[in-house]
Amino acid sequence: MPAPTHSFDLARWVQVRSRDVDRALDRFLPKATKRPATIHKAMRYSLFAGGKRMRPALVLAAAEACGGSTEDALPLACAVECIHTYSLIHDDLPAMDNDDFRRGKPTNHKVFGEGIAVLAGDALLTQAFEIAAQCKAWPRYSHQEVILEIARASGSLQLIAGQVADLEGEGKELSVADLRYIHERKTSALLCASVRLGGMSANCTPTQLKALTDFGYHVGLAFQVIDDILDVTQTTEQLGKTAGKDVAAQKATYPRLVGLDASRRIAAQLTTKAFAALKPFRGRATALDALARYLLERQS
Amino acid sequence: MPAPTHSFDLARWVQVRSRDVDRALDRFLPKATKRPATIHKAMRYSLFAGGKRMRPALVLAAAEACGGSTEDALPLACAVECIHTYSLIHDDLPAMDNDDFRRGKPTNHKVFGEGIAVLAGDALLTQAFEIAAQCKAWPRYSHQEVILEIARASGSLQLIAGQVADLEGEGKELSVADLRYIHERKTSALLCASVRLGGMSANCTPTQLKALTDFGYHVGLAFQVIDDILDVTQTTEQLGKTAGKDVAAQKATYPRLVGLDASRRIAAQLTTKAFAALKPFRGRATALDALARYLLERQS
Repeated sequence: MPAPTHSFDLARWVQVRSRDVDRALDRFLPKATKRPATIHKAMRYSLFAGGKRMRPALVLAAAEACGGSTEDALPLACAVECIHTYSLIHDDLPAMDNDDFRRGKPTNHKVFGEGIAVLAGDALLTQAFEIAAQCKAWPRYSHQEVILEIARASGSLQLIAGQVADLEGEGKELSVADLRYIHERKTSALLCASVRLGGMSANCTPTQLKALTDFGYHVGLAFQVIDDILDVTQTTEQLGKTAGKDVAAQKATYPRLVGLDASRRIAAQLTTKAFAALKPFRGRATALDALARYLLERQS
Repeated sequence: MPAPTHSFDLARWVQVRSRDVDRALDRFLPKATKRPATIHKAMRYSLFAGGKRMRPALVLAAAEACGGSTEDALPLACAVECIHTYSLIHDDLPAMDNDDFRRGKPTNHKVFGEGIAVLAGDALLTQAFEIAAQCKAWPRYSHQEVILEIARASGSLQLIAGQVADLEGEGKELSVADLRYIHERKTSALLCASVRLGGMSANCTPTQLKALTDFGYHVGLAFQVIDDILDVTQTTEQLGKTAGKDVAAQKATYPRLVGLDASRRIAAQLTTKAFAALKPFRGRATALDALARYLLERQS
């Protein structure tokens, strides 16, 4: 739970918004008893497995920064969470990262078997578009615009490109450029789309959309560099997940490629750029700013 | 290649339309050399593996029946083909049907490995929505309507529900009702959506949409019953795929549950209903009618 920052109670803000998102997801998804129950249980298992709801929070915070409402932003917040969850389920499969646990719980395929895990991922990806298509459309941002935003950020040139490059990079010597290519796609693309979609749900101006794009891109990259740093500097207890996993897997990371000090400098530069992008909002981006501070100053 | 029916040259019609679809798919998809090349090669490998383009043909024929153009229908024809191809790639995975060959060619995971096959399926599913969102919208059928149509037909209550029920039905005694539930979802849902989307691309009337829905539903069910019949009555050479596969796998099929004669009666009834649904088009549904005749009177 984040601590209050700058007299804005982020912990409380996140708590309220997460509850809104959870309720909306529960409403959008078929009930767990709906036939065929297995798939709906499997979809819900991973969707309600204790995710931090970071992407939905970014959608809602960006909407607020542009004067929009939580209600109008919720379908898009839920859609990006479905995309994120599907990508985790497929990423955890034996043919991919082969993870047995996520957030301390057995991964989807460990509980439901590989076949259902593949289908549960597919179903969440499909569900994302069904939910997104139910958002409120604006003169500036039609359903077409919103669907294209999600499809492109999740497609073979962005999110999936990152997963492919990650898969193919295993055991290879990657350059910093390669690593940045992976981070931009695996993390930044969907974070960036999240804040953009939040802006779109608030019928934001083109200037606001550009600011959100800059912000999302840099937050995403900074987040990933910080993740790499924490993996080598924190203990398993501090992280709440296995520390040193990247080193053990001989994974290309910023600390491995450029050292810890340079990694910290890069993270600081990216963080500075992220906050600079919020300037056009002149103090109206309170939640977005606090959220970025929390994500980029975290110790776990 | 279908033979000419009722003085309408279906073979020629299909040939021209398939070429249009192939060209459009080639245009919509990232080039095979586009980074990361592996995923684009894998997507294209299955998409251009000799599929019959039955669903795109239904989209285009339905559009014609409603006075629409091939040009306006093509994005939706391509979208349903991407959905169909993704579902085959995931269906063939070891955790699902575990097939090494499809249409005489090694399946996606046999060529690219399981990890990439999962991601290629994901990418084609995502691509389907990106392509569909680029269709022409009409006053009656907005992008929202079109995206919802595709998402629902492909989601956990339809296409994926069929795959789940199929997976869970293996080795179990299914009832005719169970089998129909699977067929409705695994086959009818996307065929039905295909003709509906064709109608939508032509800004069809509500009466036309209802007729197309009836038609698609019954063609889909009939098609599947006929598939079951052919599996037990035809040789591997006649089918161009392994005959008797359902029997060998002890799969629930119509012939197995109700016998061959009753299966033929059911297929005939469904076929009659499909053609009856075309009456409102009063002879304008030439290609759709010929296509249905070809699909339902085929011997392989």
